[in-house]
Amino acid sequence: MWQTPREQWDMSLKIEDNEVDIVIAALRSNLNTFLEEWRTFFSNFHLIIVKDPNLEEDLQIPPGFDHQVYTKSDMDRVLNGASINFSGHSCRYFGYLISRKKYIISIDDDCLPARDNSGVIVDAVAQHISNLQTPATPFFFNTLYDPYRQGADFVRGYPFSLRDGVECLLSSGLWLNIADYDAPTQIVKPHERNTRYVDAVMTVPLRAMMPFSGINIGFNREVLGPALVPGLRLVGEGKQRWETIEDIWSGMCAKVICDHLGCGVKSGLPYVWRGVGSDADNAMDSLKKEWEGVKLMEEIVPFFQSVKFPKTAVTAADCVIEISRMARENLSSLNPVYAQAADTMEAWVDLWKGD
Amino acid sequence: MWQTPREQWDMSLKIEDNEVDIVIAALRSNLNTFLEEWRTFFSNFHLIIVKDPNLEEDLQIPPGFDHQVYTKSDMDRVLNGASINFSGHSCRYFGYLISRKKYIISIDDDCLPARDNSGVIVDAVAQHISNLQTPATPFFFNTLYDPYRQGADFVRGYPFSLRDGVECLLSSGLWLNIADYDAPTQIVKPHERNTRYVDAVMTVPLRAMMPFSGINIGFNREVLGPALVPGLRLVGEGKQRWETIEDIWSGMCAKVICDHLGCGVKSGLPYVWRGVGSDADNAMDSLKKEWEGVKLMEEIVPFFQSVKFPKTAVTAADCVIEISRMARENLSSLNPVYAQAADTMEAWVDLWKGD
Repeated sequence: MWQTPREQWDMSLKIEDNEVDIVIAALRSNLNTFLEEWRTFFSNFHLIIVKDPNLEEDLQIPPGFDHQVYTKSDMDRVLNGASINFSGHSCRYFGYLISRKKYIISIDDDCLPARDNSGVIVDAVAQHISNLQTPATPFFFNTLYDPYRQGADFVRGYPFSLRDGVECLLSSGLWLNIADYDAPTQIVKPHERNTRYVDAVMTVPLRAMMPFSGINIGFNREVLGPALVPGLRLVGEGKQRWETIEDIWSGMCAKVICDHLGCGVKSGLPYVWRGVGSDADNAMDSLKKEWEGVKLMEEIVPFFQSVKFPKTAVTAADCVIEISRMARENLSSLNPVYAQAADTMEAWVDLWKGD
Repeated sequence: MWQTPREQWDMSLKIEDNEVDIVIAALRSNLNTFLEEWRTFFSNFHLIIVKDPNLEEDLQIPPGFDHQVYTKSDMDRVLNGASINFSGHSCRYFGYLISRKKYIISIDDDCLPARDNSGVIVDAVAQHISNLQTPATPFFFNTLYDPYRQGADFVRGYPFSLRDGVECLLSSGLWLNIADYDAPTQIVKPHERNTRYVDAVMTVPLRAMMPFSGINIGFNREVLGPALVPGLRLVGEGKQRWETIEDIWSGMCAKVICDHLGCGVKSGLPYVWRGVGSDADNAMDSLKKEWEGVKLMEEIVPFFQSVKFPKTAVTAADCVIEISRMARENLSSLNPVYAQAADTMEAWVDLWKGD
């Protein structure tokens, strides 16, 4: 019964800047403020800027960034007839696919650097790299949070055999100011802002499920890449973050896959500061659409609770194919969006393998 | 496969001061500083002060506290020949048994009130009560921590059917200054102090195991009481916190029992400030003893991973009896301390039932 990590962690791992691409989904044309605010932290990295295929205006990008812009014509070329919809927030996934780096960090274009409790501006890129570079500890909860952080450790009673930990494949960051609520919550609390900077990172325990948000993340593209899939699209999907659910679905995929592979997911730092601009407006308009996502979650959670992978599934791509099979079998009779998700996941893995 | 909470939470729960006993294990005779520092926060509550049966000097207790002192003669009377060892840290468990209140808060006599990030002194009693009074959410992880805290909520993607939550039976607080490390860690980092005040409470997810510390806790005595059992004693047990493991064992019991009963455990706030006095000295002397506990954890964790309760186990007492049976069956051949733990657990449940 002893849960043995598949492999223990290489303590000497050092992620180099040239192993990381920063992916930015451009849902608005003017990226000047966004990029200027992040300049210090982005300047050592290559940026993959993916233009929402529905966006007509030209992008405004300030000079001095090592970057490449990808547009609808790049998507058409790569898709080569495959049916994957990269519009809206989903355009970022094209960046994950087109990258050739080992690691991806992705931050939404309505997010600016946050300040910590001392007023110091947070380097979200460095924090994601640190989260991915140090072990995750999914098999036993540490009450003092990330034991690999400076000034922390494992507490009394934490078994020594589990202290080496396992590889962290996914780092899920948080948001100050506009929290990532759903539309009903936003309507109930229109003026609530998240002002609490919780100075912690933690491994989300084995088998715990979580509502993953794609707003501010880092991940090991080489190992986990295919799991970050723009699979589930609401029928009435819009451009507001809360009118989408593709990141929640892919986060559920990523978590069960990390569990199966014996790897970890961290949540907590880094925070980014989310502006009011994008979401806080039309909550009322979005509510009708959002209820679709809210209802789907009542089916999605028990589905992922029941996911079990065969031993033959040894890569993230294998696991994504298994999930698409199970979704077709167990969910597609409930709602046509699931069959579409299964199709997308299969097409996605084909593209990923054809890399 | 859908994990349904046994019962949803009564949102109108309000814990009254007269439903709470504060239990203090007196391992040292002079409680003046301890009680004076806590006076503001303790003054509305009844204190159960349990004198370590090995302590010879009279206790010094400042005037003005509603309290009752229990000593070895009370233990002998209640035990009536039963074989339970209440010496050292274990004396606190006598307070849990003798109390007639619904809730217990227990804080070690080497802990003083901590200060939060703004320098405000923390009312640990109020925070434990708040943790027990608001729902726990063990079935799905909330990335913004306790959703019932002022200024927080459930994030996008959190299923609405799980938002009511379930009863929190156990609140496990943390420590500033001297962290609750084991002796090997303390020796490796003799000068490390925990200075990070992480402003968060969270529910420890279903099935996640944790290294519970008895230094600073609150719990529902009425429902969970028998699980807080002084069962496992090291052969070379001493009075340093790290020379003991009884709270780690009882915490493992409490967590699997809360999981089975469909209830929750929270970890995080409140912090207390732990002085150097008690532990930081003889780490070297304690190391030999501590290794016993460190080794035992490698057996204890897989044991608790394998614990499954029958449906007939519907109370904490039922579950403790099951654990003692399983420990005798699966652990007692490894080390005589487990057979002794099983005996103690059975005697403990008898005492609890005879209440």
